[in-house]
Amino acid sequence: MTVGELRPPAAPRRHLLSIADLAREDIERILETARRMTSSLDREMKKMPTLRGRTVVNLFYESSTRTLASFELAAKRLSADTMSLRSSGSSVDKGESLKDTASTLSAYDPDVIVVRHPSIGAAALVARWSAASVVNAGDGKHQHPTQALLDIYAMQEALGRLEGLHVAIVGDVLHSRVARSLVQALDLVGADSTLIGPPTLVSRDLEALGCATSNDIRDLAEADVVYVLRMQQERMSAGEAFIPSLREYTALYGITPDRVRPGQVVMHPGPMNRGVEIDAQVADSEAALVVDQVRAGLVVRMAVLYDVLVATVRERIPAGVA
Amino acid sequence: MTVGELRPPAAPRRHLLSIADLAREDIERILETARRMTSSLDREMKKMPTLRGRTVVNLFYESSTRTLASFELAAKRLSADTMSLRSSGSSVDKGESLKDTASTLSAYDPDVIVVRHPSIGAAALVARWSAASVVNAGDGKHQHPTQALLDIYAMQEALGRLEGLHVAIVGDVLHSRVARSLVQALDLVGADSTLIGPPTLVSRDLEALGCATSNDIRDLAEADVVYVLRMQQERMSAGEAFIPSLREYTALYGITPDRVRPGQVVMHPGPMNRGVEIDAQVADSEAALVVDQVRAGLVVRMAVLYDVLVATVRERIPAGVA
Amino acid sequence: MTVGELRPPAAPRRHLLSIADLAREDIERILETARRMTSSLDREMKKMPTLRGRTVVNLFYESSTRTLASFELAAKRLSADTMSLRSSGSSVDKGESLKDTASTLSAYDPDVIVVRHPSIGAAALVARWSAASVVNAGDGKHQHPTQALLDIYAMQEALGRLEGLHVAIVGDVLHSRVARSLVQALDLVGADSTLIGPPTLVSRDLEALGCATSNDIRDLAEADVVYVLRMQQERMSAGEAFIPSLREYTALYGITPDRVRPGQVVMHPGPMNRGVEIDAQVADSEAALVVDQVRAGLVVRMAVLYDVLVATVRERIPAGVA
Repeated sequence: MTVGELRPPAAPRRHLLSIADLAREDIERILETARRMTSSLDREMKKMPTLRGRTVVNLFYESSTRTLASFELAAKRLSADTMSLRSSGSSVDKGESLKDTASTLSAYDPDVIVVRHPSIGAAALVARWSAASVVNAGDGKHQHPTQALLDIYAMQEALGRLEGLHVAIVGDVLHSRVARSLVQALDLVGADSTLIGPPTLVSRDLEALGCATSNDIRDLAEADVVYVLRMQQERMSAGEAFIPSLREYTALYGITPDRVRPGQVVMHPGPMNRGVEIDAQVADSEAALVVDQVRAGLVVRMAVLYDVLVATVRERIPAGVA
Repeated sequence: MTVGELRPPAAPRRHLLSIADLAREDIERILETARRMTSSLDREMKKMPTLRGRTVVNLFYESSTRTLASFELAAKRLSADTMSLRSSGSSVDKGESLKDTASTLSAYDPDVIVVRHPSIGAAALVARWSAASVVNAGDGKHQHPTQALLDIYAMQEALGRLEGLHVAIVGDVLHSRVARSLVQALDLVGADSTLIGPPTLVSRDLEALGCATSNDIRDLAEADVVYVLRMQQERMSAGEAFIPSLREYTALYGITPDRVRPGQVVMHPGPMNRGVEIDAQVADSEAALVVDQVRAGLVVRMAVLYDVLVATVRERIPAGVA
Repeated sequence: MTVGELRPPAAPRRHLLSIADLAREDIERILETARRMTSSLDREMKKMPTLRGRTVVNLFYESSTRTLASFELAAKRLSADTMSLRSSGSSVDKGESLKDTASTLSAYDPDVIVVRHPSIGAAALVARWSAASVVNAGDGKHQHPTQALLDIYAMQEALGRLEGLHVAIVGDVLHSRVARSLVQALDLVGADSTLIGPPTLVSRDLEALGCATSNDIRDLAEADVVYVLRMQQERMSAGEAFIPSLREYTALYGITPDRVRPGQVVMHPGPMNRGVEIDAQVADSEAALVVDQVRAGLVVRMAVLYDVLVATVRERIPAGVA
């Protein structure tokens, strides 16, 4: 695939920090690029020369094997060089500020910095202090935009449409950047969402995101997609008692075979706690798109890397030429 | 080297899980491929384009720098892309099942997954849950087939033959997957082996593997090859007293210069405990093949990656064409 | 850039272990190569095929994200393959000797081994036990030659000359391999240096390095370059009380805006302790070359890898041909 074969971006974009920064046509362009990436992966020779000579730095302040592996592999499939820095064992541990780390990285003149950080706004700060394109791979409870994009990509592949879909998002919405990003992305492409969970994790004020809320698991029935959030067991320990017990949570909100109706698909961002938020039988059923989501993660991240770098090139073109 | 120059595999093989799965001709084919790899490494340009565009994932649940480095470098020398996941800091630590990790990895459509895991049968499970070729890089006390293959490769290079060789394997056989795989491989190629060590570590019932056993270090004298196992000091701590003390083990079974007769070669899978199971003078002598084994590890792992992928290609060829 | 375009080394050099091993023309040749590398990085396609097929192994016994990342990226920009081994999780932790690790690595026939180790002389030992070119990336309190080279590269780029420059090095000189290497390198290129700090960290006997010493921060005024060393806070804990307190150190020797005169440049090897040895206002000022140093680190390390490998090639050329 060459640059010329792809639709140019509607507007120059250097970063992907939040779904809130995107217009519907941005999402559609990225999904279209991802579809082209998918067809290229069917070939025996999966590697594309598209980003040869480019450098993608992964700056991860939180451990996340899945997301890091997905970005690394996406970059390698496009022939980019990768460098991954994790907080453990890094200058970060020596008390260096995020600003100094961003400045240091910028000195290497990377094309893209992918940032994962426990603080809200970290990726935006790196974008301010660096000349690279920045992709937010999760900042605290705020945003995880590539996860939302891969989720809607997987939905469209499975159901053939996004417009008018109804998605139920079940579980610990309170702490979930995945839920936040996904609700916004669904809204942009014309789909509806309902957040479902216990009152401590799903409160009415979340409706400000542009979705419905419910504390009744039976409201699942109306959905085309059952999106199950990971129950972060570390949140349930001493002091942070958002649910009475995991056992009770599972009884009230766990996704068991009897709660899924025929025709629904079930999604989960992984890693799954089988037997807690999702029953093993559901996880292994035909309805589950979990592996499709992982596969979508690879092509969508390839598409995002392509998208931010094409945008950068366009910005450098003098006005009047483009 | 191109695919056409190499002998095709006798039968389609997608995995390397255990020496027990191999026929003698499989071993000979792999050793022959390894020899070709060796001659290619003598060139200034060591990199071969053989696996360009292929992806090798290393999934390591046990720390092992040597084995991981050897597989990574083998894959890179064949121009494959590599991705290495270690249990520390990965989804594994979040309680994800091996099945889900295997499914997730499979979604990336890797060509090979190299697995190291503390549980017997782990690699076989990954092979069942994944479409990739799986190479077992050690599963509990069970198997470590590439170690056995590199050992017999190094023996053949040093001694010019395998048929009729006599190999004494000395030390902690009880906990050694290396010993288990090696005895089987030696048997397949027509060599004999004797296990030597204290009664707590070498018991008669190990003869079921197809070898002799002895508790007398003097039985070393008959061997062409003295294969010294690593004494895992962690096994000797509180509760697991398989030997009275390291000092006594060394006195009774340590490989000292006076216990090695002229003409014998000495091998060790590394890392060595100098002064415990092997004397420094022996380790540094002309008789020691330790560095040859490491070098053999690189070419044998290149050969194994090549072997499992060629087999995969053949399986995809419709019947009647191949 | 091809080999032919660059000046050949004055004498075959296989290693970079210490600034003390270099002649002035060696330094000038490396800096000149680094300048050519810099201009190549201005292109859209930053990757050069110079070291394609070569392998660079990074053997790091101390955690140092900056230095490791810089070497990894330098090798990748020259198209070399890289393999990085860190002490954590490696055979090192199983008690293997440095000698055995070096022998093992050598079996893989790498072209360069980059070594960082807490013991003085570690890189020299690896050089003795290995056929690879060895680059010292820091050995205890002894040497850190690539840091010194990148520092003088950044000075020359900023100030247009090295000859006759006066450099004040401020802080914990006692524990600093950076200071030791830098003083030697400055001396070689005709620049002067003065070490400044409290008597416990800067004593008269350091003048044996070929520099002046002072315990008075006001002596900064004479310098063209203020080089601020990192205050290693771990040194200041129980038992190692080289300074009364960080607060007092900052009051007496911290580099604040009023201590820097117009025309001076300020350098720091990073990571900075803002508010301890350097004031944030100084760190962010136009006078600070901190980011330039990081950028210099990349091109100087590219130049060093190029330099040691070109030297190796020359050694293999039979006498009478070269």
